[in-house]
Amino acid sequence: MMYEQLKRFIRHNIQVSDDVLNEIVKHFKPLSVKKSAVLLSQSEVCHNFYFVHTGCLRTYYLTQQGNEKTRYIATEGTVITSLTSFISLQPSFEFIDALENADLLVISRVNFFRLVKDVREWAEFYRRLLEFAYIYQNKKIENLVTLSAGERYNLVIKEHPAYTQRLSNKILASYLDVTQESLSRLKSR
Amino acid sequence: MMYEQLKRFIRHNIQVSDDVLNEIVKHFKPLSVKKSAVLLSQSEVCHNFYFVHTGCLRTYYLTQQGNEKTRYIATEGTVITSLTSFISLQPSFEFIDALENADLLVISRVNFFRLVKDVREWAEFYRRLLEFAYIYQNKKIENLVTLSAGERYNLVIKEHPAYTQRLSNKILASYLDVTQESLSRLKSR
Repeated sequence: MMYEQLKRFIRHNIQVSDDVLNEIVKHFKPLSVKKSAVLLSQSEVCHNFYFVHTGCLRTYYLTQQGNEKTRYIATEGTVITSLTSFISLQPSFEFIDALENADLLVISRVNFFRLVKDVREWAEFYRRLLEFAYIYQNKKIENLVTLSAGERYNLVIKEHPAYTQRLSNKILASYLDVTQESLSRLKSR
Repeated sequence: MMYEQLKRFIRHNIQVSDDVLNEIVKHFKPLSVKKSAVLLSQSEVCHNFYFVHTGCLRTYYLTQQGNEKTRYIATEGTVITSLTSFISLQPSFEFIDALENADLLVISRVNFFRLVKDVREWAEFYRRLLEFAYIYQNKKIENLVTLSAGERYNLVIKEHPAYTQRLSNKILASYLDVTQESLSRLKSR
C-alpha cells in the first residue's frame, strides 16, 4: 500500500516499466516518526530523501531575528528533503520536522544518486524534481513580492484548502510570511 | 573562439566526446546585442537560452512598489535564461536585459529540449544546470535572511571583485537588495 502510493507518484512524473519501477522502489525503506520529530537540523548534512505516505512534514529556516520561515509543506503522496544540502553535501540551512505523526518511505542519498547514474528513468525523475523545486521556489518569491498577505492567504485556501484546518496558526503564518495576528484577521474575514 | 569558450563551459560540467559536443554546439547561433537591449520582458514566454561570450546580462523583476530586484548576473563564459518560463512555457516573471554590449550564442528552447531528450550528455548538462540554479537561488535567499547588508557586500567583493567597477550603483544595489544610499556608504568604508 505504501509502495503502491510511491509507485503512483513516480509514474505520475515519468514513464517507467514495472520491472524498473520495482528496482527503484526497493531502495526505499519504511520509517515512522512522531509529531515534532526533527529529521534534520540546521548545519547537518541531509543524507535522506523522504516520500510521505501519511502525515505532514515541512522544511523551515530561521531568520537572523530567530523567526521561523516555513519554506515547503509535504503531505500524503509527496516528497521532501533539504535539497541544496542533499545535492551538495553542504551543511543544511533548513530544518526538516514532522507536523504530525507520519509514515514515510526513505531512500539514502547514496542509493538515490546511484540510481540517477545507473537508471535512465530515475535520472529523468530527478530532473523533473529539480524543475519542480526550482519553479516552486521561484513562485514563492514571486508571490511574496507581487501579492498582498490577503492574496497569498486566498491562494493557499484555493490550492491547499486543508491547510487552514490542518496546520497551526503559527505554522501557516510562517508559511505565508505574515504575523500570527495578521493571519487571525485574515481568517476571521 | 566563441564556440571554443562554449565547449569549455560544457566540458567543465559534463564528460562528453568531441563528436557529441560538436553536435550540441551547432545548435547555438551567434547574436550581438547592444547595451540596454531587452532580451525578454515580463509576461513574455522565454524561448531562448543564452551563453555569454563577451559582455554582461542580468535577470531582474519588479516588486509591487516598482523597485527592480536583480536576481542573477551573467558575465563572459556563463549562461542565462528566465528558467521558470523556459521550463514551463508560462509567462516570465523576470526581465532579461544587457548591462553592456554583448556577444552571445543562443539556442532555442525547442532545440535545447530536443537535445535533452536525444542526447544523454545534454540531459546530464541540463540536470547540473538545474542543480546549480536551485542552489544559487537558495543561497541568495539564505544570504538575504542571515547576512547584513555589509556582509553581503563583502561577499560580492570576494566572489565577484569586478562587480563594483563594472556594474552601476543602481544595479549593484538592486543585486544586493540594499538602497543606493546604503551601497554608497558601504563603498566608502
